[in-house]
Amino acid sequence: MLIKISSSFSFMPCKASLTAQENETGMSSHKDVVTSYCTKVHRNRKMERLQHNYLFPEICARELEHIKKYPNAKVITLGVGDTTQPLPDVVASSMSNYANKLATPTGYRGYGPEQGSKELRRAIAEKFYKDMNIKGTEIFISDGAQGDICRLQLLFGSDMSIAVQDPTFPAYVDSSVIIGQTGDVEKGSGSYQKIEYMKCGPQNSFFPDLSRTTPTDIIFFCSPNNPTGHAANWEQLEQLVQFAQQNGSIIVYDSAYAVYITDGRSPRSIYQVPGAKKVAIEVSSFSKIAGFTGVRLGWTVVPEELLYSNGLAVINDFNRIVCTCFNGASRIAQAGGLASLSSEGFKAVLSLVDYYKENARILLETFKSLGLSAYGGVNAPYIWVHFPGSDSWDVFNEILEKTHIVTVPGSGFGPGGKEFIRVTAFGHRENIVEASKRLRSLLS
Amino acid sequence: MLIKISSSFSFMPCKASLTAQENETGMSSHKDVVTSYCTKVHRNRKMERLQHNYLFPEICARELEHIKKYPNAKVITLGVGDTTQPLPDVVASSMSNYANKLATPTGYRGYGPEQGSKELRRAIAEKFYKDMNIKGTEIFISDGAQGDICRLQLLFGSDMSIAVQDPTFPAYVDSSVIIGQTGDVEKGSGSYQKIEYMKCGPQNSFFPDLSRTTPTDIIFFCSPNNPTGHAANWEQLEQLVQFAQQNGSIIVYDSAYAVYITDGRSPRSIYQVPGAKKVAIEVSSFSKIAGFTGVRLGWTVVPEELLYSNGLAVINDFNRIVCTCFNGASRIAQAGGLASLSSEGFKAVLSLVDYYKENARILLETFKSLGLSAYGGVNAPYIWVHFPGSDSWDVFNEILEKTHIVTVPGSGFGPGGKEFIRVTAFGHRENIVEASKRLRSLLS
Repeated sequence: MLIKISSSFSFMPCKASLTAQENETGMSSHKDVVTSYCTKVHRNRKMERLQHNYLFPEICARELEHIKKYPNAKVITLGVGDTTQPLPDVVASSMSNYANKLATPTGYRGYGPEQGSKELRRAIAEKFYKDMNIKGTEIFISDGAQGDICRLQLLFGSDMSIAVQDPTFPAYVDSSVIIGQTGDVEKGSGSYQKIEYMKCGPQNSFFPDLSRTTPTDIIFFCSPNNPTGHAANWEQLEQLVQFAQQNGSIIVYDSAYAVYITDGRSPRSIYQVPGAKKVAIEVSSFSKIAGFTGVRLGWTVVPEELLYSNGLAVINDFNRIVCTCFNGASRIAQAGGLASLSSEGFKAVLSLVDYYKENARILLETFKSLGLSAYGGVNAPYIWVHFPGSDSWDVFNEILEKTHIVTVPGSGFGPGGKEFIRVTAFGHRENIVEASKRLRSLLS
Repeated sequence: MLIKISSSFSFMPCKASLTAQENETGMSSHKDVVTSYCTKVHRNRKMERLQHNYLFPEICARELEHIKKYPNAKVITLGVGDTTQPLPDVVASSMSNYANKLATPTGYRGYGPEQGSKELRRAIAEKFYKDMNIKGTEIFISDGAQGDICRLQLLFGSDMSIAVQDPTFPAYVDSSVIIGQTGDVEKGSGSYQKIEYMKCGPQNSFFPDLSRTTPTDIIFFCSPNNPTGHAANWEQLEQLVQFAQQNGSIIVYDSAYAVYITDGRSPRSIYQVPGAKKVAIEVSSFSKIAGFTGVRLGWTVVPEELLYSNGLAVINDFNRIVCTCFNGASRIAQAGGLASLSSEGFKAVLSLVDYYKENARILLETFKSLGLSAYGGVNAPYIWVHFPGSDSWDVFNEILEKTHIVTVPGSGFGPGGKEFIRVTAFGHRENIVEASKRLRSLLS
């Protein structure tokens, strides 16, 4: 709506404003002060619906508070899933060389294609989608999965209905709230109206009962799932694809942790399931494959065969979004991504994955030996630990207070996580071993 | 709305699908084929409203077509505003060193703060906002202005009314269409319903007549403007800020080219105007300052004093968007940004700016000497050339056919650009001089 012209200069008095105080991370914490002028712009109703801060910055803030409280404690961070091991030399040096070339007349490059370099797109098709007939032109290079999840939400718009696993990575729900697909949050349950929460817990082998799932336009599905660490097996993914086909839904499949799958019983890509190219988009990332959390690189596959109800291809609209709202990933990061897929690079990258998988084994073993029900940790770098009857924030706080170990309370991933905590296997081995000791002494 | 469960497995026949053929840039061109299955997901009505491809990829595609048609021609690109000169050594080597350190146990870093590094945020505050009392915590590091324009649209949501300069950078209008703030496009004029187009042409010294401008929630304002090259002067920006105050609007001020201002009559930041912190967000970028078009780095300032009508601070919601939809700019790019603001780096960067400004002078002089009305080129790297009575696509085509020079048709920047072309000063000097010669022989 257009604002009416006011006849005289207006200074609307305001009740409260906010001021920032810098903390150690450079993040701001704001508090109320008095001020004199407000704009007439209404706060976006959709932003108002968001319940609390985005989960992971909140965990970082709590960690910092704890460090302040116990300045001499050796805090171990098993919270945010952040890679800790150095990049392979071949990857770092390819980025280093690329950066140096930018200072030369022949090596300088300006804008790249918004969709990413042709070479990298082809290398991803070859490395991750061989025998699935995915073309380089169906792959869009991103600055990480989180950005593309929001760009996909822009593509879908506010009129879509969505389903998510419960629990799951919070960006799906939060971006859905921001774009306007949801109603308000229901007090008590913490669920948003209009979102279909697909319960995934020990009671159903972490795979939703699709016969009781209300069909939606879009199904976000993360496998191996963050936070439960469960990798859906062949039969489960076939069921999911068939469910989408029956209902005409689009699956947004997040395979950011697929490289951790080694049990042979779970596909690493949704496109290994026959028919998936007609119903699924796949979002992925170099973050947890190659340690690129700070380098920022990912990709999204939109198959040409994926069509709207009117027969038009989804890929064309996604291309439009990428060209309008994104200007390509850093060329330096892309050079690193390409090197990480080379024969030498990928071998080095997989040994990093093995390192984190051994961490996961140690942590999983720790919790199991204490008689706790712990899940994941085999095909994923996360362990999902059950504390029946407890509230996850209480467990989080108790572990933090008594062992100085940061975890993530399960309820941050959805109502279905309220009795769980997530423990990440990303970390230095010595810290993982030390954490294991502390946990054993606390929980035994 | 939720889709009804269908009782049997459904294969909806489809009229048309699209297939990709790779061209030289790795971009896809799609054409119709027959297929057997469509999802039931409706194409987003907002995406349907977009008129044509995003402008700049379209220009690149036309350039490639031209190269195919004339394989022996020496095509000169004065179209997309893309930097061409090598990075300063100090900038490239800082990125190179940072990348190398990522391969060491002590130098490895994972996720950075979503808002960017504290050091870089402070350095930007110091370099560009000195004496304006902008704090580092009010600055959010991005991967470039285009991404943040879309993230700002997510912040505002679909219920906002917006105004744009006409002509201006097309991302404002296109992102507004995508988020759902507009109606349909009006055939003929090419304007979108519900957008307030503020005409900026030679008739009004490229500054809108605010007394005839319908107030809106949001005013996108780019200065120096892309494409006209006009830098609003002090009086004009004071008028703009006062207009926003009177109506309670928020200005989104795009200062991506501010470093090109040298006439002393135009502010380089909106925050130099008293009161602007209560009404304006500023979006900017390292792309055209430091040659970072391929490196990807920018920033957005959201002052704490900028408040919604309910007294809450806009910065908190923008922080939420950044944390949810963006995971920080590449740390390597941030290292380069920091180096470009060092004493040595900034000196080198400014000499690049001088180089492009000399190109602009040559091109402006060329058009003027031919008796054409040409604008910009003094405080901006763009020249805006008037061809009264002509259609800009015709002029674009004629120049391309006869001189093998790529420009940008003015109508790509809005209805107000239909008799103009935009010529970029980004280029190697030899190409600029050669282009000048060719244009003189064509147009004299």
